[in-house]
Amino acid sequence: MQQHAVVKQIEKADRAIVAEDFDTLMDIYTRDAVLVVEPGRNAVGKDAIRKAFKAIAVYFKNGLQVRQKGIEVLESGNTALVLANTVISAPNMPEITRKATYVFYKDANGTWLCSIDNSYGHEIIGGNA
Amino acid sequence: MQQHAVVKQIEKADRAIVAEDFDTLMDIYTRDAVLVVEPGRNAVGKDAIRKAFKAIAVYFKNGLQVRQKGIEVLESGNTALVLANTVISAPNMPEITRKATYVFYKDANGTWLCSIDNSYGHEIIGGNA
Repeated sequence: MQQHAVVKQIEKADRAIVAEDFDTLMDIYTRDAVLVVEPGRNAVGKDAIRKAFKAIAVYFKNGLQVRQKGIEVLESGNTALVLANTVISAPNMPEITRKATYVFYKDANGTWLCSIDNSYGHEIIGGNA
Repeated sequence: MQQHAVVKQIEKADRAIVAEDFDTLMDIYTRDAVLVVEPGRNAVGKDAIRKAFKAIAVYFKNGLQVRQKGIEVLESGNTALVLANTVISAPNMPEITRKATYVFYKDANGTWLCSIDNSYGHEIIGGNA
């Protein structure tokens, strides 16, 4: 089965996060994208998202690892919803799996860009309830 | 806190499902919306979605109840991602809670319409894994 273009973008983003290549990473987001930094705290727009990722890298001692273990894409028009089991680890944190939810938008060039990045999934409901 | 317009649409949809008012229900979907009928089986477009909801109503002995217990909306531009704990019950089924994911699109009139309806959330990954 051919891999969805959105999945390729996510793999590219994961590699960029691990490499701390924030220029490549920012190319994958829409201009007004929303990143859930932690439940209850969002970064909006590329500048804020870049800053958040830089802080996350430091927080995880520049050793953050990210990969997707199971992923599904639902597409409608120019929008795609991604459900993923996102596995995260770092030197100072045991491996955890988050039930992540991402929304991608297909721009006029046919490139899929992330507009909503919520790796916490339902953990954001009611203050992590 | 004022309720997000998307939440109002979901409440309207839930009332329409319970009342089996499929005309009102279809008004809430985009033309090319995707509904996950069950993991691995999607209905695409209003005609297919209407047919699926009619079959669902019969399957649940015309006694399906739907409500949201905790809901969060992430908005970016004309797109909104909804994370919800969706509670479903019926005369022939004990109450279950699904970690639902919905995507809404804001049309030119400012009306939020559902483009992706996945009440199963991460259950769609890898054949219900």
